[in-house]
Amino acid sequence: MTNDVLNVIRERSSCKAFADELPEREKLEAIAQAAIQSPSATNKQPWQVIVVTDKALIDEMEAETVRVMGQLPAYKGFYDLITSTGMKLFYNAPCMVVLPIDKKNPYSAYDCGIASQSVCIAAQSLGVASHIIAINEVVFQGDRAEEFKDKLHFPEGYEFGLAVLLGNPAADNAPHTPNPDKITFVD
Amino acid sequence: MTNDVLNVIRERSSCKAFADELPEREKLEAIAQAAIQSPSATNKQPWQVIVVTDKALIDEMEAETVRVMGQLPAYKGFYDLITSTGMKLFYNAPCMVVLPIDKKNPYSAYDCGIASQSVCIAAQSLGVASHIIAINEVVFQGDRAEEFKDKLHFPEGYEFGLAVLLGNPAADNAPHTPNPDKITFVD
Repeated sequence: MTNDVLNVIRERSSCKAFADELPEREKLEAIAQAAIQSPSATNKQPWQVIVVTDKALIDEMEAETVRVMGQLPAYKGFYDLITSTGMKLFYNAPCMVVLPIDKKNPYSAYDCGIASQSVCIAAQSLGVASHIIAINEVVFQGDRAEEFKDKLHFPEGYEFGLAVLLGNPAADNAPHTPNPDKITFVD
Repeated sequence: MTNDVLNVIRERSSCKAFADELPEREKLEAIAQAAIQSPSATNKQPWQVIVVTDKALIDEMEAETVRVMGQLPAYKGFYDLITSTGMKLFYNAPCMVVLPIDKKNPYSAYDCGIASQSVCIAAQSLGVASHIIAINEVVFQGDRAEEFKDKLHFPEGYEFGLAVLLGNPAADNAPHTPNPDKITFVD
């Protein structure tokens, strides 16, 4: 059984190498629309869809993510890997959709996940690659948290949920192999 | 800007009236496949996709949800509404995809949301209506929690995350109106 939608869901993968150029504005707008069309618990829509195309700000977030990781013992291994290899934490993505959420809403993490998959699926349908990330949550645990919330225009009381990197793919990337053991039918 | 995928995302709504008949098996299998093709944090796939087509079990879960709600003060208003109106909590859905998660994984709620939207989008593309629910979480807070985990074949250590009702729509249902104020561009 197949159709365009099932194909797009199957072909989506988490891109690890983005090209420099920003995808067309109308594609980014269509992707943002898909996010706000997502279902949420009792339709509370406890998220904001912040489409960052300011590369300087994305680079500043990347540097701040690495800096704060260096202060947090839990991230020591990953920090050492990043700083020793010069690995690009955000894979050179020219666009990042930040999805802050109202954490007072007990379903906001679920709803944030729902919206982030709408972003990925819509992007994939337009030839735009995606990668959901959470690592930059540490920016909002550091001493410059409020500064970054302001730069990103977080709504009052909202906290970082997830982010989705977007851009044109610079290399082929295979989807993960689905694990059929993850499916159970109870008939 | 439009294509089949963007149309399906836009046209999806949370169905409140399902027809009795079960959608074709191959559609349910395609929907389950879409779920396991979802991205998850470091590809941990901290979910199980449990497709329940046993209507007696779905009805039993519905009755148990209402029973446990009646014991929980936080649900008093909703319980009174359900019991006084005879409202069908699961909207007569012939199928329920239960998504239990590994709550020790700090990203499992996000990942569960991601997978649930894959279910909804795949379903919509096949003409199958959907409705993500969390209300039956109370079943897993009641004194019969372990019994229901067994009946549903929850993997060891997994807890209820979300569920998605599936079936053919018995009535038209409009999508929610997207709120453009939920989108911010930072250029």
